Amino acid sequence: MTTRSPILIVGSVAFDDLELPSGTFKDTVGGSATYAAFAASTFSEVRVVAVVGDDFPQDVLAVMETRGIVTKGIERVSGKTFRWAGRYDADLASRTTLDTQLNVFADFKPKIREEQRGTPLVLLGNIHPTLQSDVLDAMSGPDLVVADTMNFWITGESEKLGKLLARAHVLIINDEEARQLSGIHNIRRAAADICKRGPHTLIVKRGEHGALLFDETGIFAVPGYPLEEVVDPTGAGDSFAGGFIGYLATHLGRGAKLQPAERARLMRTAMLYGTATASRCVEGVGTSRIQTLVSGDVDARVAQIRSLFELP
Amino acid sequence: MTTRSPILIVGSVAFDDLELPSGTFKDTVGGSATYAAFAASTFSEVRVVAVVGDDFPQDVLAVMETRGIVTKGIERVSGKTFRWAGRYDADLASRTTLDTQLNVFADFKPKIREEQRGTPLVLLGNIHPTLQSDVLDAMSGPDLVVADTMNFWITGESEKLGKLLARAHVLIINDEEARQLSGIHNIRRAAADICKRGPHTLIVKRGEHGALLFDETGIFAVPGYPLEEVVDPTGAGDSFAGGFIGYLATHLGRGAKLQPAERARLMRTAMLYGTATASRCVEGVGTSRIQTLVSGDVDARVAQIRSLFELP
Repeated sequence: MTTRSPILIVGSVAFDDLELPSGTFKDTVGGSATYAAFAASTFSEVRVVAVVGDDFPQDVLAVMETRGIVTKGIERVSGKTFRWAGRYDADLASRTTLDTQLNVFADFKPKIREEQRGTPLVLLGNIHPTLQSDVLDAMSGPDLVVADTMNFWITGESEKLGKLLARAHVLIINDEEARQLSGIHNIRRAAADICKRGPHTLIVKRGEHGALLFDETGIFAVPGYPLEEVVDPTGAGDSFAGGFIGYLATHLGRGAKLQPAERARLMRTAMLYGTATASRCVEGVGTSRIQTLVSGDVDARVAQIRSLFELP
Repeated sequence: MTTRSPILIVGSVAFDDLELPSGTFKDTVGGSATYAAFAASTFSEVRVVAVVGDDFPQDVLAVMETRGIVTKGIERVSGKTFRWAGRYDADLASRTTLDTQLNVFADFKPKIREEQRGTPLVLLGNIHPTLQSDVLDAMSGPDLVVADTMNFWITGESEKLGKLLARAHVLIINDEEARQLSGIHNIRRAAADICKRGPHTLIVKRGEHGALLFDETGIFAVPGYPLEEVVDPTGAGDSFAGGFIGYLATHLGRGAKLQPAERARLMRTAMLYGTATASRCVEGVGTSRIQTLVSGDVDARVAQIRSLFELP
């Protein structure tokens, strides 16, 4: 298909200070919406809804625009941009948050511009579930809603998260979050429980071990691609979500009504693309790799991932 | 093919006291050779080399014999059988060793019977690497040597383990052991390092996340099968090894000389069978499930695992 539906992405745009085994990198551009937008822009037009302070450089927005990312929805307000600082251990297996300054992100209220209300695909990054619902209220019935969340909202805002889940088609979380959300340790029964709350598809991310997809037709597993060198794991999860919804944007037209089998195949293939996009992201520091990604890079990695589970 | 080559399995036969969420089970029969032998006996004739004390019940050996397991090589000596006691946490995610009594296993010296010297496939369970080498010295050049080991020998007997590795065709270890053995955290580079020491194939077990295979032709990944209920994880790794070598026994004739591509395909398919066999093992307490396993059970699980990575 030659469909290229636009994608609305809501989330954070930030400055990250990264302490990596390869060196310390100050003031790199990060945030969930940034990574997801760069990832998705490899596939289709992306419209970002976020907030930055008056310290945020205009030239980063210009780089986004050259990738087909519409930055009109990135509100600039007085104050400082969200800032995160983290240190990775020597083998990149774990990280410690050194500092979090919400700054202007603390009062973020996503504003959907009139011309963006009809965007058919929406990726709701990890923000307060009420704000995620507000975004959907402002939209004119998107065809596909993909949501992310985290333990903080699962434990603190379970009722509001429940309302959001009832309106999401796809939920992307990690295995610990799936266990926490359902209160069930067994991942298969946890998934069945979560899918009863709304999403037709649940994707459980498992870091280097890849990801599992659960839907009414069954289970699909994509292994993580064992890279010879991981440079910086920051943004891998957001790049996965961006690559996932990006692939779908090239296959879902406006008003798409899919049969379960057709949907199952699309979602599974999108998971391959999400995994490939994430594994490209971690090849460079910060957004350096994801912001220069072309579809050939993703296609080549998809082929490498497929070879992991094809019998010769 | 209708080949059914016999398999020699060396390892421990033990009594296990298991504290599981579902209850406490005393004096269950366990041990690496027991699990691997029951697993492999689903595929072909198995010859066990092990030691038990005079407290070991004859009827357990009789059960083995009904499965085509030759127990003549299980030496009975004066004293008590190896005993292990462990407690699993509520979600079976981790376990604590409560007691280990080596008993007669402390002085175990595998003795290869004259009629077993020519056995074409050998599985060397996790015992002292010098004893593993002694077994190979006593054999008349087996076609396939699959070895297991553990962190205890990796750190304490690295030189002797090095000599054993030079004679093994396949090494099966977990990811932590692979990192420890190579001194390299990145699993892909760790695998490349280990394969330079002898084995043409390295299998890295990752528990519920499945396993990775590395050889000169590339990498193969098999996801763990997400069961709705795991009853007892004890023996999963040994059942994996037993199912793996069992499958190969049905495809490798005496004196088999395989081309790399043919070998790669066989090893990958064997990994699917190992994974399937292990996932059957954990459906019951101790050896209860693995000792009644029939090939149809394994084939059905292989099909379920394959469906995890097939696009509909």
